[in-house]
Amino acid sequence: MTNATRNRRICFPITSRAYYGRSQLLIKKLHQHPGVDLELMLGGSVLLDKYSSHVADDIKAGGFAISASLFNVIEGGNHVAMAKTACLTALEVTNTLYTADPDVVVICGDRFEQLAIAMAAAYLNKTIAHIEGGDVTGSIDESVRHAITKLAHIHFVTNDDARRRVLAMGEDPAYVFNTGSLDVERVACSVDNGIDITTTELSAYGVGHDVDVTKPFLTVIQHPVTTESDNRTHLEATFRALAALDMPIVWFWPNPDAGTGEMAEVLRHFREHHEAATGKMRFITNVPADHFIALMKRTACVVGNSSAGIKECSFLGTPVVDIGGRQQGRLSAENVVRAPYDTAAIRDAVTRQLAHGRYAPSHIYFKPDTSQAMVDVLTAIDLYTQKRFHEVS
Amino acid sequence: MTNATRNRRICFPITSRAYYGRSQLLIKKLHQHPGVDLELMLGGSVLLDKYSSHVADDIKAGGFAISASLFNVIEGGNHVAMAKTACLTALEVTNTLYTADPDVVVICGDRFEQLAIAMAAAYLNKTIAHIEGGDVTGSIDESVRHAITKLAHIHFVTNDDARRRVLAMGEDPAYVFNTGSLDVERVACSVDNGIDITTTELSAYGVGHDVDVTKPFLTVIQHPVTTESDNRTHLEATFRALAALDMPIVWFWPNPDAGTGEMAEVLRHFREHHEAATGKMRFITNVPADHFIALMKRTACVVGNSSAGIKECSFLGTPVVDIGGRQQGRLSAENVVRAPYDTAAIRDAVTRQLAHGRYAPSHIYFKPDTSQAMVDVLTAIDLYTQKRFHEVS
Amino acid sequence: MTNATRNRRICFPITSRAYYGRSQLLIKKLHQHPGVDLELMLGGSVLLDKYSSHVADDIKAGGFAISASLFNVIEGGNHVAMAKTACLTALEVTNTLYTADPDVVVICGDRFEQLAIAMAAAYLNKTIAHIEGGDVTGSIDESVRHAITKLAHIHFVTNDDARRRVLAMGEDPAYVFNTGSLDVERVACSVDNGIDITTTELSAYGVGHDVDVTKPFLTVIQHPVTTESDNRTHLEATFRALAALDMPIVWFWPNPDAGTGEMAEVLRHFREHHEAATGKMRFITNVPADHFIALMKRTACVVGNSSAGIKECSFLGTPVVDIGGRQQGRLSAENVVRAPYDTAAIRDAVTRQLAHGRYAPSHIYFKPDTSQAMVDVLTAIDLYTQKRFHEVS
Amino acid sequence: MTNATRNRRICFPITSRAYYGRSQLLIKKLHQHPGVDLELMLGGSVLLDKYSSHVADDIKAGGFAISASLFNVIEGGNHVAMAKTACLTALEVTNTLYTADPDVVVICGDRFEQLAIAMAAAYLNKTIAHIEGGDVTGSIDESVRHAITKLAHIHFVTNDDARRRVLAMGEDPAYVFNTGSLDVERVACSVDNGIDITTTELSAYGVGHDVDVTKPFLTVIQHPVTTESDNRTHLEATFRALAALDMPIVWFWPNPDAGTGEMAEVLRHFREHHEAATGKMRFITNVPADHFIALMKRTACVVGNSSAGIKECSFLGTPVVDIGGRQQGRLSAENVVRAPYDTAAIRDAVTRQLAHGRYAPSHIYFKPDTSQAMVDVLTAIDLYTQKRFHEVS
Repeated sequence: MTNATRNRRICFPITSRAYYGRSQLLIKKLHQHPGVDLELMLGGSVLLDKYSSHVADDIKAGGFAISASLFNVIEGGNHVAMAKTACLTALEVTNTLYTADPDVVVICGDRFEQLAIAMAAAYLNKTIAHIEGGDVTGSIDESVRHAITKLAHIHFVTNDDARRRVLAMGEDPAYVFNTGSLDVERVACSVDNGIDITTTELSAYGVGHDVDVTKPFLTVIQHPVTTESDNRTHLEATFRALAALDMPIVWFWPNPDAGTGEMAEVLRHFREHHEAATGKMRFITNVPADHFIALMKRTACVVGNSSAGIKECSFLGTPVVDIGGRQQGRLSAENVVRAPYDTAAIRDAVTRQLAHGRYAPSHIYFKPDTSQAMVDVLTAIDLYTQKRFHEVS
Repeated sequence: MTNATRNRRICFPITSRAYYGRSQLLIKKLHQHPGVDLELMLGGSVLLDKYSSHVADDIKAGGFAISASLFNVIEGGNHVAMAKTACLTALEVTNTLYTADPDVVVICGDRFEQLAIAMAAAYLNKTIAHIEGGDVTGSIDESVRHAITKLAHIHFVTNDDARRRVLAMGEDPAYVFNTGSLDVERVACSVDNGIDITTTELSAYGVGHDVDVTKPFLTVIQHPVTTESDNRTHLEATFRALAALDMPIVWFWPNPDAGTGEMAEVLRHFREHHEAATGKMRFITNVPADHFIALMKRTACVVGNSSAGIKECSFLGTPVVDIGGRQQGRLSAENVVRAPYDTAAIRDAVTRQLAHGRYAPSHIYFKPDTSQAMVDVLTAIDLYTQKRFHEVS
Repeated sequence: MTNATRNRRICFPITSRAYYGRSQLLIKKLHQHPGVDLELMLGGSVLLDKYSSHVADDIKAGGFAISASLFNVIEGGNHVAMAKTACLTALEVTNTLYTADPDVVVICGDRFEQLAIAMAAAYLNKTIAHIEGGDVTGSIDESVRHAITKLAHIHFVTNDDARRRVLAMGEDPAYVFNTGSLDVERVACSVDNGIDITTTELSAYGVGHDVDVTKPFLTVIQHPVTTESDNRTHLEATFRALAALDMPIVWFWPNPDAGTGEMAEVLRHFREHHEAATGKMRFITNVPADHFIALMKRTACVVGNSSAGIKECSFLGTPVVDIGGRQQGRLSAENVVRAPYDTAAIRDAVTRQLAHGRYAPSHIYFKPDTSQAMVDVLTAIDLYTQKRFHEVS
Repeated sequence: MTNATRNRRICFPITSRAYYGRSQLLIKKLHQHPGVDLELMLGGSVLLDKYSSHVADDIKAGGFAISASLFNVIEGGNHVAMAKTACLTALEVTNTLYTADPDVVVICGDRFEQLAIAMAAAYLNKTIAHIEGGDVTGSIDESVRHAITKLAHIHFVTNDDARRRVLAMGEDPAYVFNTGSLDVERVACSVDNGIDITTTELSAYGVGHDVDVTKPFLTVIQHPVTTESDNRTHLEATFRALAALDMPIVWFWPNPDAGTGEMAEVLRHFREHHEAATGKMRFITNVPADHFIALMKRTACVVGNSSAGIKECSFLGTPVVDIGGRQQGRLSAENVVRAPYDTAAIRDAVTRQLAHGRYAPSHIYFKPDTSQAMVDVLTAIDLYTQKRFHEVS
C-alpha cells in the first residue's frame, strides 16, 4: 500500500500522567495537522482513577481519536508485577496496533512499558519514533532507554551529549534530531502564559495539610529505583532529613514502578503514626501539568530523584537536591546539588540550597519550537523499517 | 541474600531447535559444573512436535532440570502472531523466572522471543548474559540483537567486529568477551568426531524424494525476512532458479517467523502442483545438530539466507549463495557469494559456486574452547544489575 | 445510558468456520434489522489460512462491522494449548467487548473458547444469549455447554428435550425458546435453493485424489474427543475399517481441539506411507456451507462423530455411522447407527448403512424460520443481567 | 500412568484471604494425609500486601508445597479489570496445572477467578471438586457458582436445599455430598477453643480510631455487587444510616471485585472530610480467621452483605442486617433481617436488631467434621472426567 494516497497515520501510546503532560503540545499539533491521522492509545496508570483521572477527561475534551483503553497494570508494586504489566501491555498493544495499522508509533522516554510497546511495534514492522533517547541515568530506565533506541528509526534527543551517544550506538545521523526537551518547551510555554497556582487550588489536590504557596515550601518527588533493593530505607532517610527542617512540604506520591509498594507503606506509616512530623505536609498523587510547573516555579527547593528536577528546574532556575542513583550521569545545570541516601547529607544539601536561593535559568535542555520541529520531521521524513548499524568512522 | 552461600543459579531459555543445537556444549558444561545450578526453560517451537520433538527427548535424556515448559506459539505465521508469541512468552517467562530466581539468565542470539525474555529478566533485576551480540544483519533480527545488547550485562561475541560495535554502544569493556561462535565450535567438534550422514539416515527425515548424499546435492535454507513484505515471490525466485538446475535438493522448511505462512504455502503448492520440478527434492523441518553439520559438510552448495551459510560453512569451506537482505552486513568469508531475489542471478551464482567447489576453511568465527571460555566467565565474574553507559573515548 | 435512545447493540463472536456456516442466516438478518447494530468479532481458527480463509473473505464481502480480529490459537494441539487458547481468547475479548460495549453477546454451541468468551461477557455484566444449550453429548463439550447455560440469560434450544434440561438447571422459562436448529434451517434453505456440488468443484478443495460425487462415496468427519486419551488409535480404527471397504472417501481434517495433533499425524502418516489405502481419498480442511450441505446430501454415508451427522443428516435422511463417545446421549433420528472404536464394528455398521440407503427426513431438529424467531427475541425481549435460580416446582 | 502407584495429587488454589481462612482445617488435614500430595497455588489478593500479607506467612509456616505464586490482579476495581484478572489467572494457572499434573483440583465457592481456574482445569481434563455449590445469591456470584457446578465432578454442598439444586442441574447423586459449611466448622472449632480478641489486638489492624470490644459495637462488611451499577450510593446509604447511630464501628474494606474502586473512594472521602462521623470508626482490610470469628461473636450486629452474616453468624446467633441483593435467596436463619438500600430502613433494621440482642444458634449450615468428611471423599472416591447429565426422574 502506498502512503501517498492517504494521511500519515501516527499512533501515540500514553501510559502515564507524566507522558501526557509533557506531550500535550506535540499531540495537539499532530492532531491539528491536515496530513496526519493521530490515534491515542491509553494504558497503564493513565486509566486508573487514583493516579490520574483528569488526564482521561482532558483527552476526551480534546476530541482525540482513542484506539484503545487498556487496563493492564498488575497489582503488587514489585518487580514481577512490573514485568508482567509490561508484557500484558505489549500483548494488548499488539492487537491494537494491528487493527489501527499506523505508519509511525511514537515512543516516549524510558518507562518500562514503553519498551514493551516498542517491541510490539517493531515486530509489527512499524516505523518507531523515540523521544528522549541517548540520556544516561540510573535505574532500569537506563537499560530501557537504550534498548528502545536500538528498536527505533527516528530519534528526537534533548541535548547534544545524547545525540552523540545515539550516533555511537549505530543510528543513522539523518534520523537523529536534537529538538530540545518537550518538558522544557512546556515549561517555557506556561511561563510565557503567566500560569500560577494558589493555595486554594493546591489544597484541592491530595490529602493532608494545607501548604501556603506564598511562603517557602519544599517539594518532594522521590520515585523507586528499580535496580536497588532498599527503596524503603532510602525514602526514610529523605523523610527524616526533611522532618528535621520543619518546613511546609508538597510531597508527591511515587510512580507505580517496582518498589512503589514499600515506599507507599513508608508514607502511609508516617502519616498514621507521626502526626507531628507530617503536620505541615500535603501528599499528592498528581496535578495537571500547568499547576505542576507553577509548583516547580514557586517551590524553594525540589528534593528527590525526579527528572523534573534536572530538566524543568534547569530552565526555571529552581534549586534541586537530587538524591541517589536514579538520575546518575544525567546532564545537569548548576541548580542541581547531589546527595547520597543519608539523612544528614540530605538535610545539609537542602539547607545549602535554601540559603543559595534561585539560580539563573539554563538552556541546556531548551530549544524553541521543540514540538513543531518534531511535527515537521514526523510528517515529512521518509519512513523505513529495516534498520542498519551506522558505524561512526 | 548473599550468593556466597549458594551455587550460582543460571537459567537458560531454549526456544528453538537451532538454539539447542548450538548450545549443547555450553549447556552440558554448565550442567556438570559443581558451582552451578542450571535450569532450562523450554518454549516456542522446541515443544511443538512438528518442528523438533527430538529436542525435548534429548533434554530429558540429559538429566537437566526444567523449570517450565511453555506452550506459547500463536498460530498465524504473520507479524501479529509473531509479536503476540513474544509477548505471551515474556509474560509466562516472568512467572517462571520469579519462581526459579536465577542469578544469571543466558540469552542467545537474535530471535524475536529472546528479546521478550531479556525484557522480562531485566525488569526482574536479573543479570543477563548475551551470546552473539554485535553482529550486523538484515530482518528484524538486526534490531532485536542490539536491543538485547542494551539490556544485557555480560556479552559473548563471536568476532572482533562485533566486539567493537558492542563497545561503541556503551557496554563495559570488562564484560565483553570474544569467545568465537558456539555454532562453529560445535562444527569443529563434530568434524573431529568424524560425524557423517548416510542417504538412509537422511531419508528418515521429512517428506518427498530420497537424496543420495554421496552425489552432488544442494541444500536450501531460506527463512522469512520479517521486514520485507514479499517473502512469497522471493521464495518463488529461489525455487525457479533451482528447479532449472535439475539437481537433488535437501530443502529445509522455513522458521516460524512472520512470513512463514506464505512461504509454507509456496512450498506446499509446488509440491502438490509441480511434481516434475520437485521430483528430486526432499523437504525437511529439522534434523539433529550432528546430521545438520554433516549435511553442511557434504552438500555441494548451500542456498538461501541462513546464518549457517555464513558461520558454520565458513569453517567447513562449503560454497554458499546468500540471497537477499537477511544476512546483509554480516561478516563473511570468501565461501559466500551474494545474490539478489532474482531467478537468473541466483541460478548463475549457484552455477559459479558449483564450478568453484569447496573453499579453504576460514577461522573468522572460530576460537578453540568457546563454550569453556563462557563457563569460566559465567561462573566467576562479578555480577551486577545497574547498567552504565561506557563512552568510548 | 438508556437503551431507548439507541439501537440494540449485538456482538457476535465467530471463532470457527462451522459457527460461521451455521450462523449465516441469523447474522444476515441481524445485520439488516434497522433496530440492531451488529458487530462481529473474529478469532480462533477463522483467521488462520489453513483452515478457513474464505470465511474472512465472505465476511468482508458481506459488509459487516468487525470489532476485532484476534489471533489467539496457541499451537500444540493438546490440552494445554487448548486451555491457553481459551484463556487468551477471553483476555482479548474482554478488551474488545469493553470498547464495543454491546447490550447482548451471542454465544454459539459448546466449543471451548465460547465458554471463555461467555465468562468475559458475564464479568462485564453483559446479557448473554446462548444458542444450542441443553443438549447432551460426550467430550469436554458436555461440560462447556451447560456451564455456558448457567452464565447465559437468553436460551435458544433446538429441541424439547434440551428445553426441559435447561429449565431443570434453573433457567427462567420466559427466556428459554425452542427455535429449532440453525444448522438444519440452513440445510432446508440450501435444499430449497437446489444447491449442489460437482466433482470439479470438490476437487478445488484440499489435497489427494478426485472423488466423483455422482457415484457412491463416504464422508468422514472424526474430531478429537478431548476427554479421551487415545484419539490416535480411535482414528486408526476408523481408517482401517474404511480402507477395507475400498470406496471413494471425502475425509475432513479434524477440528483444532486437544488431540488434533495426534490425529493429524495419523492422517499424514497414512497419506505418506499407505498410498494404496489412500488412493481414493480426498483430504479437506473446509468447504463453504453450501458445498458442505451438498456433500451431506450426496454422500452414501457419513462416518465419524460430527454433530452434522446427528443434526443436518437427520433432516436430509443421510445414513450415518456415529463412532464413540463424542455425541453420546444426543437426541438422534433413525438415520444414525452407533459404533464403538472398533475396526470390525465400524466396517459392519457402514456396510449396513450402505445396504439400507437413505432414510425418510426427520424434523426433530427442525422448525421453520429459526433465525427469524431468534431475531424477534433478540430485538424485543427485555434484557437483564442479574440471574436468579428458577426452581421447577 | 496409573494412579495406583502414586499418591493422589490434589491441587488447591487460594486466591483470597477468605478462602484461606475457611479452608485451613481442610488444607491441614489433606497435608497430613499419607495418601495425598497436596500443592497450594497462590494468586489474587492473597499475594498483595495491602490485603493479606499474613496469609502468605501462615502458609509458609505450615510447610505446604506451593506450586506457584501468581501476581495476576489487574488494577482498576471495575468490570474490565475483574474480567481480565480472571482471564490472566486462568492463563497462568493452566501452565501451573500442566506442570503440577494433579489428579484433583479443588475449587471453592463462587469468586470470579475460581470459575477461570475451573475452566482451565476442565480443559486440562482434571477432576474438579467444588465446595459450596447449589446456593442461591445475587451478584455475579450466582452465575459463577452454578457454572462451576457444571464443570465440576465432585460436589460438597453446605445444606440440603443446595443439594437439591445441584441434582436438578444434572449432577450425579453419587458425587454430591452435604458436608455442611467449612466456615461454620471453623467457627465451631474456634468457639470450642475459646478464642477471643482484645481491644489492643484489634487496634493492631487497620487505621482509624480504637474500638473497645468489651462494649457494644457494629461490624460492617459491605462488598460490591457486580451486577449493580450504583455501589457508590448503596454504600453511602449504609454509611449515613450508621453514622446517625453514633456507635463504635469496625468497618471492613470491600473485596476487590468490580465496584470496589467507587466504594473505596466513598470510604476515603468520608474519612478525609467527615471526621466527626468517622470518629468512632476503625477501617480494616483483613484480620486472621480466629480474630474475625471473635469479632463476629462479640459484635452487637453485623451490617452489610457478607456471606459471613448468613453462615458464620447463624451458628453464633449474632444479629445481622443483610442489605440489598448480594445474598438474595440464600438460605438464612432467624438472626438475619433484610433491608433495602435505604438509609432509614437500614437504621431501623439495625436499631431493631440491637434491641433484640443475640439469637439462639442455628445449625442450618453446620455438620460436625465437615473437613474430615471432605478428606474421606477426596482420598477414596473414584475419579472421572467425562461428565454426563443425570436427569432427575
